[in-house]
Amino acid sequence: MNSAPLPISYDDIAAARERLAGVAHRTPVRRSRTAEERTGAELYFKCENFQRMGAFKFRGAYNALAQFTPEQRRTGVIAYSSGNHAQAIALSARLLAIPSVIVMPHDSPAAKLAATRGYQEGQRGSEVVLYDRYTEDREAIGRRLAQERGMTLIPPYDHAHVMAGQGTAAAELIDETGPLDLLLVCVGGGGLVSGCAVAAHHLSPGIEVVGVEPEAGNDVQQSLARGEIVRIDTPRTLADGAQTQACGQLTFAVIHALVARIATVSDEQLVRTMRFFAERLKMVVEPTGCLGAAAALEGAVDVRGKRVGVILSGGNVDLPLYAQLLAGR
Amino acid sequence: MNSAPLPISYDDIAAARERLAGVAHRTPVRRSRTAEERTGAELYFKCENFQRMGAFKFRGAYNALAQFTPEQRRTGVIAYSSGNHAQAIALSARLLAIPSVIVMPHDSPAAKLAATRGYQEGQRGSEVVLYDRYTEDREAIGRRLAQERGMTLIPPYDHAHVMAGQGTAAAELIDETGPLDLLLVCVGGGGLVSGCAVAAHHLSPGIEVVGVEPEAGNDVQQSLARGEIVRIDTPRTLADGAQTQACGQLTFAVIHALVARIATVSDEQLVRTMRFFAERLKMVVEPTGCLGAAAALEGAVDVRGKRVGVILSGGNVDLPLYAQLLAGR
Repeated sequence: MNSAPLPISYDDIAAARERLAGVAHRTPVRRSRTAEERTGAELYFKCENFQRMGAFKFRGAYNALAQFTPEQRRTGVIAYSSGNHAQAIALSARLLAIPSVIVMPHDSPAAKLAATRGYQEGQRGSEVVLYDRYTEDREAIGRRLAQERGMTLIPPYDHAHVMAGQGTAAAELIDETGPLDLLLVCVGGGGLVSGCAVAAHHLSPGIEVVGVEPEAGNDVQQSLARGEIVRIDTPRTLADGAQTQACGQLTFAVIHALVARIATVSDEQLVRTMRFFAERLKMVVEPTGCLGAAAALEGAVDVRGKRVGVILSGGNVDLPLYAQLLAGR
Repeated sequence: MNSAPLPISYDDIAAARERLAGVAHRTPVRRSRTAEERTGAELYFKCENFQRMGAFKFRGAYNALAQFTPEQRRTGVIAYSSGNHAQAIALSARLLAIPSVIVMPHDSPAAKLAATRGYQEGQRGSEVVLYDRYTEDREAIGRRLAQERGMTLIPPYDHAHVMAGQGTAAAELIDETGPLDLLLVCVGGGGLVSGCAVAAHHLSPGIEVVGVEPEAGNDVQQSLARGEIVRIDTPRTLADGAQTQACGQLTFAVIHALVARIATVSDEQLVRTMRFFAERLKMVVEPTGCLGAAAALEGAVDVRGKRVGVILSGGNVDLPLYAQLLAGR
């Protein structure tokens, strides 16, 4: 445990819950007899694939934007992301009538571009700015635009308000299940796992929080082993939400203090888990969203005899890719 | 309206609810902003794809078996079905410790055979009997086995206890939503729509119940027009749960009395609706389960300005076929 105070406390998560009440979905918690027979555990799946936008990211984005000052609301928000964070910011900005500029790769899937622009429709000062992901630096573009236009940049994970928002997912889960022995959470930049770890340790003292990364991109596992943030090359994995090169400063401080360890699973295990959810629970879960469940179902973490919470982080996967993965190529 | 008493009343459905309490899932009711913006209706999707067995069929099967006499429980149940009814009977029989014989086509998908046999494992006197669907008559086999072994045959829809069980789906839905203007229900043999029509008219007086069939197999639409049961050739449609040649005597009596009309949708509309559920609601809905929703989303029924309940009947579709349909071939 660190002795320095953590960047967020449970009070921040409790406040986020109030901001999100009636705005974010209280997503269902589901179980599967098949999964429980196979693992010998009680498994509680928190279905953030049913969240607005199809992913937990809405929680953090909305919690951040809802705390903007009147001046920030007037000038607007800027975000860069090829994934769920962009849409989460665009939707939250729309709901709060805040202008949004979203920096996205020019080769983003048409459906994602269309969805983001859909949220911005009719919103003053809102637009998608495209960049070339092979030759341009999105962070530099984001910073430049933020400066030029006086807009507030909201990063995808390394931000206390974002982390606190994500933690509401675990808080809702444990409210419903009661105390748990173990919580499995996927790890990309660490926003979800850090928020959830703070919520879980507060609401279920003695719980063990285990993060799950793709085998190909275990930067946080390495970081925990070294005690400092390790940066890796962009990993090649189906879990596009966990293709981060390194976690954040704020998220690492929480992970270091509250996450017991990091497990890893292979892409093959993710695909089997994705099929399991389609076949048995009739749910679409994106590859990144399968990380925690794969750790339990594929034996990467010992769950036998335990009461285990699992965050299914999202369900946003392009249908052609999803179809291909279900079909086994 | 018929003047003869109907084969089931709301009291039968209320009694079925008590038998099913704590055994069947109370499935969630979900909404979609996208679908509501597109149709101008309030749409309440009752998710029987999340029911045990992955389909509403469990409700009727369990309600029937739970009413067996001690002698019937000893000798056991027999059912013939290539689809969800077989598995619903096998699971219900297991839960009630009743022997079950299930007559299935010898070329049934391996997953379905395995699932059915899985439910029968360790159950005395239980087995799957295979037949050749091109040369043998499953009804004759079923009747012969029933007679030889003294077992009780439970048909997939034309049975008052089965119909009453299916009606609990609409009862739960309206309990949750309050009064509705319209209820859309898929129609195969008519077990679901007849049970739901009785429940809906009781709990939401003035409601209009509309059945939905595949374009290629509109036998009930023809039957309502003629005022008597019309038998058609086995229709070629993706909606395998609605490939019935004719509805039942008991189900037709209720449909004739309580169903306003039958709408039809094409296989192409079913596939678009299936994709919509995967993409937007992150749910697997089988083609038959999409009939009611397709009628609303594709304009086969005028829903604008109405509060509309839609029963999504199930989610049991073989993954390879599902993948192929999502991919658009």
